[in-house]
Amino acid sequence: MKFVIQRDQLIKSVQDVMKAISSRTVIPILTGMKIEAKQHGITLTGSDSDISIESHIPAEEDGKVNVEQIEEGTIVLQAKYFPDIIRKLPEKTVEIESDENLKITIRSGKAEFNLNGQDAEEYPQLPMLQTDESFEIPTDLLKSLIKQTVFAISTMETRPILTGVNIKLADNKLSFTATDSHRLASREIPVKEANIEFQSIVVPGKSLNELNKILDDTEETVEISVTSNQILFRTKHLNFLSRLLDGNYPETSRLIPEQSKTTLHVKTKELLSTIDRASLLAKEERNNVVRLATKDDSNVEITSNSPEVGTVAEDVTIQSMEGEELKISFSSKYMIDALKAIEYDDVKVDFTGAMRPFIIRPAEDDSILQLILPVRTY
Amino acid sequence: MKFVIQRDQLIKSVQDVMKAISSRTVIPILTGMKIEAKQHGITLTGSDSDISIESHIPAEEDGKVNVEQIEEGTIVLQAKYFPDIIRKLPEKTVEIESDENLKITIRSGKAEFNLNGQDAEEYPQLPMLQTDESFEIPTDLLKSLIKQTVFAISTMETRPILTGVNIKLADNKLSFTATDSHRLASREIPVKEANIEFQSIVVPGKSLNELNKILDDTEETVEISVTSNQILFRTKHLNFLSRLLDGNYPETSRLIPEQSKTTLHVKTKELLSTIDRASLLAKEERNNVVRLATKDDSNVEITSNSPEVGTVAEDVTIQSMEGEELKISFSSKYMIDALKAIEYDDVKVDFTGAMRPFIIRPAEDDSILQLILPVRTY
Repeated sequence: MKFVIQRDQLIKSVQDVMKAISSRTVIPILTGMKIEAKQHGITLTGSDSDISIESHIPAEEDGKVNVEQIEEGTIVLQAKYFPDIIRKLPEKTVEIESDENLKITIRSGKAEFNLNGQDAEEYPQLPMLQTDESFEIPTDLLKSLIKQTVFAISTMETRPILTGVNIKLADNKLSFTATDSHRLASREIPVKEANIEFQSIVVPGKSLNELNKILDDTEETVEISVTSNQILFRTKHLNFLSRLLDGNYPETSRLIPEQSKTTLHVKTKELLSTIDRASLLAKEERNNVVRLATKDDSNVEITSNSPEVGTVAEDVTIQSMEGEELKISFSSKYMIDALKAIEYDDVKVDFTGAMRPFIIRPAEDDSILQLILPVRTY
Repeated sequence: MKFVIQRDQLIKSVQDVMKAISSRTVIPILTGMKIEAKQHGITLTGSDSDISIESHIPAEEDGKVNVEQIEEGTIVLQAKYFPDIIRKLPEKTVEIESDENLKITIRSGKAEFNLNGQDAEEYPQLPMLQTDESFEIPTDLLKSLIKQTVFAISTMETRPILTGVNIKLADNKLSFTATDSHRLASREIPVKEANIEFQSIVVPGKSLNELNKILDDTEETVEISVTSNQILFRTKHLNFLSRLLDGNYPETSRLIPEQSKTTLHVKTKELLSTIDRASLLAKEERNNVVRLATKDDSNVEITSNSPEVGTVAEDVTIQSMEGEELKISFSSKYMIDALKAIEYDDVKVDFTGAMRPFIIRPAEDDSILQLILPVRTY
């Protein structure tokens, strides 16, 4: 195998593929990166058997030559030092060559690395997705679906199913839902011409976080295919394959209260920064609790206190309030996460009493829903 | 005590003073920050009893008003949350007030924090330096003296004296020296009208690192005073006081070889980046060893290998070489530190054999000296 490649292109691909490579894996060869050279271009592969990432660098694209002097072949090299080596090479181009003894030579300018490779035959066959059924959504939309929900997954292994995001596609509606049983985040979007439907698959939160890091914020589409145990996200040069979590995701719809007893309309930023300030003292007592109390039609008071440190109080101007007066306590962290996930200037908060879960939604968009369970503080 | 202060000014001062405040201190009140309000301005004080920092904010400066509505007084508040509180306040100005019950109120816009203060009477009297003898050097010069030497101190407590930087002032020459007994870094500069002399005081490396962080890169001068057990760095608005280390600093001059058997002239950046690349594989075997071998009058070869990973080799173009051929091994980390500390484009490296310490100096400046002990690898 041999080729000469543009270093910048290689760096980007290597960074993406590294996201799937773990130094702590039960299958030693998976600490390596598979490099495959074909006349049409180079393909890098990394996997930790939960996530597998393939990044393709076409030999030529839009008239620009990325790879030259290609001699086809495949090799696996130790991934640990590869990104640093490539990043620190002196020239704009890199020559990578492997011989029959699995020796890999990396040349750039006067620098020459000779690395021990491994036989690509020993690299596990990645499960290839057997389905043509797929649907497409814009990349930037997929990224916000992830960002607006994945933070709410459970980090505790006690209920593994909650460490994933629940994804449904039915009636041309795509929905993402995540909950750690103390709060819930969900969003639903319309999807055109989806030739598939699936009820309730669960994608590991870790997979979605890595995917979000790799995807650029473009309007180009991502093609998504699903089988019984895997999901594949495909862009122009990237294949991102993740296993699905086994088990039944809890029915979350019944958690969401129908009616509301107190409704506030408020500027997202104002509420966020006030709760952020109040949370400074809340930190002292682990639980991060702040209190919200309605004062009049145009003000709610946010307070928090720590016997150790002191107290904080601040009024937030609200645009309107309907319904009963209310005093409620909740985790400032959950509230901050929820408000940050809402990409609108105005939010609507619906309470149904101090002990019932409450809902935060953009004032003009019901498709995004953030739910938080209050905390009993007295 | 009461005053209204420009938030930006306060943030800057608080950040500086925090550098001296540790949450792990034997004297509980030292986890706090002392705030003193006088008509001429506000003074913040922090100390961990090794380092003490006083930052002064004048009520008015260059026609600009920093502090208003001053009611004189002093209070100590818990430092832990103070920086975040100030940073996150909504308005440009902050009102800080304390009452006779040691309650502190911080107001900005609609936000109000009530914090528990402590009696300033209980705050230890900072050792005030009893000396008028002092000398001055430009701040940016002091910063490079620190940066070019402090990295070479020992991090091991086995020889505490080596955890400091040895400073001498004699015959109008100021010198900084640091060594961990494997490498040595030193620089000497001329000082005009110093009305003091001192032989060999030792300032903790930690103190100098913190000082370097606080000082801006200006040409304004720093006034330095020294007593038997303390050193004071004074700028316009800052007093930085550090204790000195007890004990005798080893005589280092004899470590420095007089004659040289092999001399290389090379571009600092080229040598640095080549050794940086070679060190990538050297990391695998803890010791970080790379090898340098002279090839001809215009090339030296840098190599490194790790049985696990592989080998790396690269020629560096040198401008000239005098003397014997040479093969030598050394810590890439020490070499990288030394070359980074040299602020010149061209360096001169003087070797006196593979087993003797070698010296790196700027080609045109003998006042900076970096010495490294080689490693025996065969």
